[in-house]
Amino acid sequence: MKINLDKYKNLTRNFEREIINLNPIQRGGILPVEAKKAVYEFWDGYSVCDYCGGRLDQVSTPPICEFLEDFSKFVNLDISRPTHGAREGKFIVMHSICNEGDYVVVDGNAHYTTYVSAERSRLNVVDVESDGYPTFRINPEKYKEVIDNLEDKGKNIGLILLTHVDGNFGNVEDAKKVGKIAKEKGYPFLLNCAYSVGRMPVDGKKLNADFIVASGHKSMSASGPCGLLAFKEEFAEKILKTSEKFPIKEIEMLGCTSRGLPIVTLMASFPHVVERVKRWDEEVKKTRYVVDELEKIGFKQLGVKPKEHDLIKFETPVLDEIAKKDKRRGFFFYEELKKRGIGGIRRGVTKEIKMSVYGLTWEQVEYVVNAIKGVVETHK
Amino acid sequence: MKINLDKYKNLTRNFEREIINLNPIQRGGILPVEAKKAVYEFWDGYSVCDYCGGRLDQVSTPPICEFLEDFSKFVNLDISRPTHGAREGKFIVMHSICNEGDYVVVDGNAHYTTYVSAERSRLNVVDVESDGYPTFRINPEKYKEVIDNLEDKGKNIGLILLTHVDGNFGNVEDAKKVGKIAKEKGYPFLLNCAYSVGRMPVDGKKLNADFIVASGHKSMSASGPCGLLAFKEEFAEKILKTSEKFPIKEIEMLGCTSRGLPIVTLMASFPHVVERVKRWDEEVKKTRYVVDELEKIGFKQLGVKPKEHDLIKFETPVLDEIAKKDKRRGFFFYEELKKRGIGGIRRGVTKEIKMSVYGLTWEQVEYVVNAIKGVVETHK
Ligand SMILES: Cc1ncc(COP(=O)(O)O)c(C=O)c1O
Ligand SMILES: Cc1ncc(COP(=O)(O)O)c(C=O)c1O
Repeated sequence: MKINLDKYKNLTRNFEREIINLNPIQRGGILPVEAKKAVYEFWDGYSVCDYCGGRLDQVSTPPICEFLEDFSKFVNLDISRPTHGAREGKFIVMHSICNEGDYVVVDGNAHYTTYVSAERSRLNVVDVESDGYPTFRINPEKYKEVIDNLEDKGKNIGLILLTHVDGNFGNVEDAKKVGKIAKEKGYPFLLNCAYSVGRMPVDGKKLNADFIVASGHKSMSASGPCGLLAFKEEFAEKILKTSEKFPIKEIEMLGCTSRGLPIVTLMASFPHVVERVKRWDEEVKKTRYVVDELEKIGFKQLGVKPKEHDLIKFETPVLDEIAKKDKRRGFFFYEELKKRGIGGIRRGVTKEIKMSVYGLTWEQVEYVVNAIKGVVETHK
Repeated sequence: MKINLDKYKNLTRNFEREIINLNPIQRGGILPVEAKKAVYEFWDGYSVCDYCGGRLDQVSTPPICEFLEDFSKFVNLDISRPTHGAREGKFIVMHSICNEGDYVVVDGNAHYTTYVSAERSRLNVVDVESDGYPTFRINPEKYKEVIDNLEDKGKNIGLILLTHVDGNFGNVEDAKKVGKIAKEKGYPFLLNCAYSVGRMPVDGKKLNADFIVASGHKSMSASGPCGLLAFKEEFAEKILKTSEKFPIKEIEMLGCTSRGLPIVTLMASFPHVVERVKRWDEEVKKTRYVVDELEKIGFKQLGVKPKEHDLIKFETPVLDEIAKKDKRRGFFFYEELKKRGIGGIRRGVTKEIKMSVYGLTWEQVEYVVNAIKGVVETHK
């Protein structure tokens, strides 16, 4: 066996420390200093198992058990469990409450992980189309149509799912209405909050959600991978079903899920997250400012207007024009931003870009806006 | 919503830094300094996704793609994927290659996670009993009997599974023979190496394994949770099946599994792990020394003798005797060890104990042996 081990000797990363990172999937996952301190304590394998009596969710040192109760309060649902992330939460729900072959009704903006969770659970997926370009809004009434249609065909519906904030346009959808429709029709309703819980206030009961999945690394300032699943009491029996041979072990959790460092960062960051959610309006203000400024130079915001979430998708014909004459082609934008200490915009892409200034200071937001304007002005 | 957030403000842990930890499940998961350095770089959420083209296993910065190839070489199988741990690897295999209702034949010492993985996959489990007290050895020939018996009854067998080193007695089982039987009978063979890969040399092909699951946090000096699944090419189609709608995404991985810090520590620790595996004989020597010394004071090692793995299970009637007269009852042992800076032995338990001195220096091993002897001598 010949393995060159040198490549593992200095694994480094320059994002965050040296660069302003505009990648939307990463802006909500940056650790505050409190969480970094906890990392030193819990980086070893199985570090949360020192005082375990057989169940991760019942560990009280560190306070995982209390944290799960606090999280249930935070999202206003009854019971919570740690997961490896939003997708694993969706899979747990689909796999435990649906039957093979059931239909899951999802929004047309659903994340790919919703589809693969359903495929892994051997379910069928039907989408509720958005209203398309340029807003891509989901009309809750269309859920009713799709459900009626499936019922007319005698199909078995196992779950209604809505992406609270989608990963393409950052639209905040009307969960309450979709939840109401699901409830009236008698189907369980899962709200995918990977992009919302930890950023903005989310009240599960008010939104008529039976299940909420959240993403620690995406929106709760935690190290990846980890997440949370919260749900209403009435689903506990199915979701928390225990092993026949090992009655303490929950089958869908395979006993224990997030058995290590990430969940510790999730807990250590929780006070920070609870605070920042209260300042959500300010984040939306920053986002709208960016949109206003960059539309002045020819960018066009896609999705619902005005923005209600930090993820921005722009059509950028002006960048595309420049790319046609620049010898670096589509890469000019990435490279020019890099020179200015800005990263996280997809390399080589100029027709459409995604970005977020979530959690940046106003000073940094200004800097980013001016840098982008500068690149466009000097190159067009 | 009223949440007391103070409890999350100083999450600390005194194991490892202040205490010699004898907990067998934790000794193989301690991070070397190289991995700790990488933690600083990659602690933010989705940190490994900076240069992702859509698939975790293809990321080359950090070198995940190369790491998976190196790991395949390390365990001598064809293809590898990151997982969240050994149990998640077992579930992936069972869920993708078996059909609902199939039988899985496992050893009688199998870890509970083997059972819950099978339950979650909706499979039936039949065990091959060990030879019982005191060695609890698994006789490979018995696999043949169990398989024949199932075949006679017309049952569909989906998988043969062996726990390479079990978590109760630390027996190293004869994988090669079990693998040969599986092969002759025409069934796929999974070797659960949670307690072996990363500690001792493991050669998948030599052991006739079709699949190997490994545990990063348990035996590869990685932060939890993470692990690896390696397998033979011929199973790629089933295990790596991709989504219909998103053809780049692997269904059983839900797209991506270990998307964050733990896999970085796994890679950063890999050179250390490759080296320590070469010194496995020395670890076995330490273990045998502990057994020899503690049997002198009335401990009795369970499992196969002499030890071939660092996990030791002792029957400890002498501790039980002391507990009867000590006013602290069963807790005296835990407390006396704690005074001496030693932890990781289950609190209150005196009939049987599990321990490991894996990775301790000889000096520390001596210290532990003398401390335990001291406690027993002065209390009996
Ligand atoms: C809407 C949405 N759902 C789910 C996910 C996946 O989250 P996780 O990595 O926690 O599974 C993402 C990530 O980009 C997302 O944007
Ligand atoms: C034999 C064996 N298999 C599997 C596991 C579980 O490993 P993981 O946490 O990686 O799923 C353990 C953990 O104690 C074990 O001892």
